Amino acid sequence: MRKYGIFLLCVMLMLIIASPVLAQDQDPIANLKVGLDTVWVLFTAFLVFFMNLGFGMVESGLCRVKNTVNILAKNFIVFAIASISFWVIGWGLMFGNGNDFFGLQGLLFASGADNSPAMGDAYQGAYSAISWTGVPLWAKFFFQLVFAGTAATIVSGVVAERIKFLSFIVFSFILVGIMYPITGHWVWGGGWLAKLGMWDFAGSGVVHSVGGWAGLAGALLLGPRIDKYRKDGSARPIFGHNMSTVTLGALVLWFGWFGFNPGSTMGVGDGSAIAHIAVTTNTAAAAAILSSTITAWLVLGKPDLSMIVNGSLAGLVAITAPCAFVSVGSSFIIGVIAGVLVVFAVLFFDKLHIDDPVGALAVHLVNGTFGLLAVGLFAQDGITGTATGNGLFFGGGFKLLGAQIAGVLGIGVFTFVVSIIAWSIIKAIMGMRVSREEEIRGLDLGEHGMEAYAGFQVFLNQ
Amino acid sequence: MRKYGIFLLCVMLMLIIASPVLAQDQDPIANLKVGLDTVWVLFTAFLVFFMNLGFGMVESGLCRVKNTVNILAKNFIVFAIASISFWVIGWGLMFGNGNDFFGLQGLLFASGADNSPAMGDAYQGAYSAISWTGVPLWAKFFFQLVFAGTAATIVSGVVAERIKFLSFIVFSFILVGIMYPITGHWVWGGGWLAKLGMWDFAGSGVVHSVGGWAGLAGALLLGPRIDKYRKDGSARPIFGHNMSTVTLGALVLWFGWFGFNPGSTMGVGDGSAIAHIAVTTNTAAAAAILSSTITAWLVLGKPDLSMIVNGSLAGLVAITAPCAFVSVGSSFIIGVIAGVLVVFAVLFFDKLHIDDPVGALAVHLVNGTFGLLAVGLFAQDGITGTATGNGLFFGGGFKLLGAQIAGVLGIGVFTFVVSIIAWSIIKAIMGMRVSREEEIRGLDLGEHGMEAYAGFQVFLNQ
Amino acid sequence: MRKYGIFLLCVMLMLIIASPVLAQDQDPIANLKVGLDTVWVLFTAFLVFFMNLGFGMVESGLCRVKNTVNILAKNFIVFAIASISFWVIGWGLMFGNGNDFFGLQGLLFASGADNSPAMGDAYQGAYSAISWTGVPLWAKFFFQLVFAGTAATIVSGVVAERIKFLSFIVFSFILVGIMYPITGHWVWGGGWLAKLGMWDFAGSGVVHSVGGWAGLAGALLLGPRIDKYRKDGSARPIFGHNMSTVTLGALVLWFGWFGFNPGSTMGVGDGSAIAHIAVTTNTAAAAAILSSTITAWLVLGKPDLSMIVNGSLAGLVAITAPCAFVSVGSSFIIGVIAGVLVVFAVLFFDKLHIDDPVGALAVHLVNGTFGLLAVGLFAQDGITGTATGNGLFFGGGFKLLGAQIAGVLGIGVFTFVVSIIAWSIIKAIMGMRVSREEEIRGLDLGEHGMEAYAGFQVFLNQ
Repeated sequence: MRKYGIFLLCVMLMLIIASPVLAQDQDPIANLKVGLDTVWVLFTAFLVFFMNLGFGMVESGLCRVKNTVNILAKNFIVFAIASISFWVIGWGLMFGNGNDFFGLQGLLFASGADNSPAMGDAYQGAYSAISWTGVPLWAKFFFQLVFAGTAATIVSGVVAERIKFLSFIVFSFILVGIMYPITGHWVWGGGWLAKLGMWDFAGSGVVHSVGGWAGLAGALLLGPRIDKYRKDGSARPIFGHNMSTVTLGALVLWFGWFGFNPGSTMGVGDGSAIAHIAVTTNTAAAAAILSSTITAWLVLGKPDLSMIVNGSLAGLVAITAPCAFVSVGSSFIIGVIAGVLVVFAVLFFDKLHIDDPVGALAVHLVNGTFGLLAVGLFAQDGITGTATGNGLFFGGGFKLLGAQIAGVLGIGVFTFVVSIIAWSIIKAIMGMRVSREEEIRGLDLGEHGMEAYAGFQVFLNQ
Repeated sequence: MRKYGIFLLCVMLMLIIASPVLAQDQDPIANLKVGLDTVWVLFTAFLVFFMNLGFGMVESGLCRVKNTVNILAKNFIVFAIASISFWVIGWGLMFGNGNDFFGLQGLLFASGADNSPAMGDAYQGAYSAISWTGVPLWAKFFFQLVFAGTAATIVSGVVAERIKFLSFIVFSFILVGIMYPITGHWVWGGGWLAKLGMWDFAGSGVVHSVGGWAGLAGALLLGPRIDKYRKDGSARPIFGHNMSTVTLGALVLWFGWFGFNPGSTMGVGDGSAIAHIAVTTNTAAAAAILSSTITAWLVLGKPDLSMIVNGSLAGLVAITAPCAFVSVGSSFIIGVIAGVLVVFAVLFFDKLHIDDPVGALAVHLVNGTFGLLAVGLFAQDGITGTATGNGLFFGGGFKLLGAQIAGVLGIGVFTFVVSIIAWSIIKAIMGMRVSREEEIRGLDLGEHGMEAYAGFQVFLNQ
Repeated sequence: MRKYGIFLLCVMLMLIIASPVLAQDQDPIANLKVGLDTVWVLFTAFLVFFMNLGFGMVESGLCRVKNTVNILAKNFIVFAIASISFWVIGWGLMFGNGNDFFGLQGLLFASGADNSPAMGDAYQGAYSAISWTGVPLWAKFFFQLVFAGTAATIVSGVVAERIKFLSFIVFSFILVGIMYPITGHWVWGGGWLAKLGMWDFAGSGVVHSVGGWAGLAGALLLGPRIDKYRKDGSARPIFGHNMSTVTLGALVLWFGWFGFNPGSTMGVGDGSAIAHIAVTTNTAAAAAILSSTITAWLVLGKPDLSMIVNGSLAGLVAITAPCAFVSVGSSFIIGVIAGVLVVFAVLFFDKLHIDDPVGALAVHLVNGTFGLLAVGLFAQDGITGTATGNGLFFGGGFKLLGAQIAGVLGIGVFTFVVSIIAWSIIKAIMGMRVSREEEIRGLDLGEHGMEAYAGFQVFLNQ
């Protein structure tokens, strides 16, 4: 209500009369807006939650029948662990006001919304780094929680078929409660990487590469599965026991990624950004499927289904950071590269005798890293409204790419080093690997005292 | 538009000019609000519908391979039965205007919306107990239908591996068409329990305990499966045939519960209530997983996956009634208790030789009852806007708890007694249990003439 | 702002003062509306995307264990193919401004939104046939893409267990890129069938019958599987290998259909249409399950689960065209008919020795056609706001029915003839059917070099 000019009497009248009109109008609209944004944030969070099913099915299906219960149990319990540890400490470390390295305010037992006025960001400003979205605190918390849970499930795949159940649980608690939130604070909590101008829209780096680095540390300390590598150094193929659940899991993950990426707007706006992101996400996945299928066909001689499946995930991981910053055409190219990368990365880790039973390092570590770099290469300033600056291929020079490389290194060094330390302590205190006998007989009987498929004739001595 | 004071001419002018502004503004806003609420109600209803998959997978996976087709068929057809019987009679009995015990108006073939003005509650006021939400009639109907369907699927688990296909179908029709709506009317239709001040936000009692009581009646009349209890009275463990589908089913149920609980607001408001409910729901599930895992580990010696899975469901059932009335901290405690309860309840029913193949009584009856009581213990008045009064632990004394106990007893006595009568009539007319030969050979061949896993080597004589 | 009358000075004052109010009000409301519509379109699109999982599970589960990997791979890659071919050419042919037969503007590499003003239909008007919905271009594109993908997955089922992997991929590219968009343009792109007054709300004809006709052409050119028909002409039953995944798939499809049908509004309005459509969709599915179960019980002697499952899909396909044009009562009748039709259609195709391994022709071709006709029979003008005119049973005479019959014939003749040509060219160039040895041993080993269930004892020589 500006520039009234003269005619004061009339104006005052106007104001008196207009005030209820304004009050009536603005409140319901603001209310509707925050309601709509909350619906969007919650639904996309539900989809991301659902990815727990996808990871559980992909990981268990790609492993042997004798370890199925163990992998399912790990994947099931890990989100419970994440829910508690992120509530107790993780959220505060990640989004609490603090320094460039971690949060210091509102640290323990995320709360405030219960007693706060109903709408918006009214929890005393303890979490101002995430005040750009106006949804209620618990919606923000829940959305970030399902992301944190994802990082831990990635580790599960890398250390599968040989880790002790309890050791995995303890590591997951540390990862989600402490390590993940700290690097998360650097990028999404207003920390030093954010200040450097590094961008990771939905978490190629913050979520996927973190899970990958933590898993890599675990795999190195655990060593490969018995008989995985032959005396001549070649890798023995170990086939998954259930390609139906693997395919199911991959489609659930793809479905869930429509929450992961478009949901990371944490608001609806006029709909154009979320629609754009849905299409870049899908296009990268499709392109990666085609390129991984062709690559596998050429390199391995047949279109291997596990490579096709991992191709889709590679494309999805790679587009996660840049999905809101690149055009649909660029998302196609990013997907094509991701699909080629994943096939060679699987072969590469086997060359190094780093045993990655389900290809999680090839998918999440390699393509999570590639996704961060892709922002520096393909970004177009403001394409969905964010001022990232342009990437190298669009005339922005090395500025953005440099920040992205800093992000790759910062996240990687921290997460890898701290993971090595954490795993080592766990190894010293409670042990890390099951016994040779248990590994041969299967972790289902050893850790859980049950079989996955009672009534079926199965072979445990694969 | 109040307090105009003097200056009448100007005021009248103002009104003439302002009126189109008001008309333009209010209609689209009201329209948007009802549109947003409808989107929320429909999407959460879709999620609840999806729980049919979860129940089907958990129940069939926890049973033997030879009964898989039968359990899947029961779970698949039961929602079809529910859809028809709730349309024909159930909806009217539950939400029609009537007395304190059942509805009397708008009884048969729910309708009205087809010919009614488009928006809101314009169907002649026949269903005024549910007029607190402004979404179109068919949205209300559909949301309530998917809840009604849930009650029937719970029964399926309790009577699994021995009931005749047709007998189950007939009972389901009666349950969803008549019994469920009557107790539902008491609580959600403005009946005597609602008037008593009893609260069940999303149906720990109205849905889950009803399914549990109806199943208990069935289990008592059916008796245990052949060879379930040894001559010395001990229970013989009968293992599930597919822990992959069990875990899948549990995660689908957890996913669906984000429709079940937050959706029960039947509107979005400013988003704070639905976000709160999503977090209490998730926190209780997570806490129950941890407590059931620890309890199973201590009591049974190993972290049994079926106990972990049932732990998650126990937490979800227990938080269903109080999810909107308690703090996140309280939801954690409720979850912890539910996870412990479910393990001992499984052992308890086996002690009584009540054969509950998938633990459905331990999950739905025991924790549904606990959930109703938890409202009376942990409720905090108005925490998401509902004036429930405080529970015992928050200074409200025994008032609310007393009403909750009345609800437990009222729902329990009615549903159990009428179920015993209904099952007895079915037993007398068409029989209830398959023949001994069929039970040993499996219901798949007996009832459906097919196997679930043709091409696999399986053992039927488990 | 009309009818100001006199008192000009005051009026001008009013306008000056009121203008910011108006500007403030109208933009956020329009913004909210397009935001809400976009959320609806995207979420329902995600659900339709998820149907890829449903089709993959139903099709692979109903086939033999030795062909599982192949069917899963086909169903997985087909959506990647669709995503690329619909982006490259399909979208433009279908919705680009053009003549009565196909689009001519905005043909290659759908784009424009990236650089356009954020909101609404601002991409130079190249796609005016779909301008009735105000959501951003990429939301429209994505919603239509997931529909296009569905048509191709239907073909996968019909040609299962004998087609070469690469031949299927090539055909899918042609179907989604060229054939599907052309008939789609006729109905949804403002083409000759739309001008004739033919209506297909969500695609019984445009999607399902197109998939059916294309599959029928493939099945005729491929011939039946080895040993499917005995020397006496009778059909040998070939059992599905995994009824758990079949049931899972069917429930995922039903779930996804709540995106398919209600989502086809491509906007929320006041919520009454989408709620209505959710209920007609569900009621038809439920009715078809009951009628197919009874029919199978009577005709085949047992309630066969695959018939119950196909019954649900038949009801869903049949209600897809009329879901927005008929009452809930009519949807019940349509469902009952669909459930009976599907059982007899399965037997009918076997009589003709057209080998349809999963019943896809009975479901999609027969009931897709029936759905188109059902519009002409049961439509009630304006029941959810669309001026279709009344169908035969509601006093509209043969006008609407005639247009629907034209649609059935137009779509059928074009798709069938072009499919025969396309398949024939593929057959001539790269072959269509795997070798006899490969078919007997299974396509998993032949085409992909792997088994679906390593570690399980399975029988390949079924």
